[in-house]
Amino acid sequence: MTVFLVGAGPGDPGLITARGLELIRVCDVLIHDRLVADELVAEAPADAIRIGRERLAQEEINRLLVLYGRRGLDVVRLKGGDPFVFGRGGEEALALAEAGVPFEVVPGVSSLSAVPASAGIPITHRDVSAKVTIVQGHGPIDFRSLAGAGGTIVLFMALAGLAEIAAGLVAHGLPPATPAAVISNGTTRAQEVVTAPLDEIAEAAAGLASPALFVIGDVVGLAAALTSVREMIALAS
Amino acid sequence: MTVFLVGAGPGDPGLITARGLELIRVCDVLIHDRLVADELVAEAPADAIRIGRERLAQEEINRLLVLYGRRGLDVVRLKGGDPFVFGRGGEEALALAEAGVPFEVVPGVSSLSAVPASAGIPITHRDVSAKVTIVQGHGPIDFRSLAGAGGTIVLFMALAGLAEIAAGLVAHGLPPATPAAVISNGTTRAQEVVTAPLDEIAEAAAGLASPALFVIGDVVGLAAALTSVREMIALAS
Repeated sequence: MTVFLVGAGPGDPGLITARGLELIRVCDVLIHDRLVADELVAEAPADAIRIGRERLAQEEINRLLVLYGRRGLDVVRLKGGDPFVFGRGGEEALALAEAGVPFEVVPGVSSLSAVPASAGIPITHRDVSAKVTIVQGHGPIDFRSLAGAGGTIVLFMALAGLAEIAAGLVAHGLPPATPAAVISNGTTRAQEVVTAPLDEIAEAAAGLASPALFVIGDVVGLAAALTSVREMIALAS
Repeated sequence: MTVFLVGAGPGDPGLITARGLELIRVCDVLIHDRLVADELVAEAPADAIRIGRERLAQEEINRLLVLYGRRGLDVVRLKGGDPFVFGRGGEEALALAEAGVPFEVVPGVSSLSAVPASAGIPITHRDVSAKVTIVQGHGPIDFRSLAGAGGTIVLFMALAGLAEIAAGLVAHGLPPATPAAVISNGTTRAQEVVTAPLDEIAEAAAGLASPALFVIGDVVGLAAALTSVREMIALAS
């Protein structure tokens, strides 16, 4: 009787919430992002309507959510990461609100912390960073404000703009040697991580696949200590 | 054979990850934060060692993780929110790494987006905010940088400092009428939400209980449209 806007998490299907998984397992309709794990789509009942969103514009998705919601079906809108962190969940929620269709948001694990974590990078760390600034890597960036923010910077959808972003931040005062990392396909088996000083990161990360997260700040320097143990685990298992 | 640093999510026990819940159900030792839901602690096996962390200093927790990890037990360190978002998970991970004890981080749903979501506030929204700045509300704050950041500001542990923080931001140029919200016990049955312009929020939120999240920015204005539907749902159910 409700539309559920559910965060699927950052990629690893084990990182969906218990409640999100429960809702998928009993839904009538599943409308899912392209990047959502196949394992999660497979959890929907065999007779559920499954709609991959790659062929649909945002307005069409909004219309489908309202349409199926009005019919009284249990609809799960499964979105990568968290619906409200660059997920356009707010637009879908507003469309449902305007149409008077009951809905509920089920938050998900956002890539913003989980993807750096999978590369051994805590986005906050005592005496290293107590501030995180999150922006989109495409579209206009206020480099002056970002370069002066301090703490950790996390950029979504930054792969195409790596060189320009790094240059813009250095031009506005961020030291060229600031540790940086690009993590492609974070938390999945296809994960690739590249770390380099900010002024070398674009070259070092050339060829990485989308989706990717760009992390800048001294916390990146902690990865060496933390990933050596990850390798130790991999060798032991 | 490993220590798992697991995020319990923001409060609602349904918001733990599927993998986190699975690990709790088979652990030998569960060391949990005070604010973790009782329902999650109850998921551990009947014969598991359960240790509430409220009586322990951070160094003692680190020592216990190393001690039980070295004994080859499956240890779950269950932390509120996400281990790496103001969770001191990095310190525990480093302690384990230095001791050569294998560990794995299982990210959780952070309060930073889930708690605003439960109050109808998307922290990003098209044409409203494409930037989020996350800081701690206690300790020193760079008001100039924060007031000029643009987008959404999310402050953890800000309840005691509400008046000072609001005044500091206004003094550095953030308009007094900027929409603000304080959400106490977000995503739980005890949740309380107060919204007001920035220069009135401290007075409006007086008496709210900890833990609380402080959210500032135009996205707070979306809550009215989104929570009216939540009330509609509550009335219908």
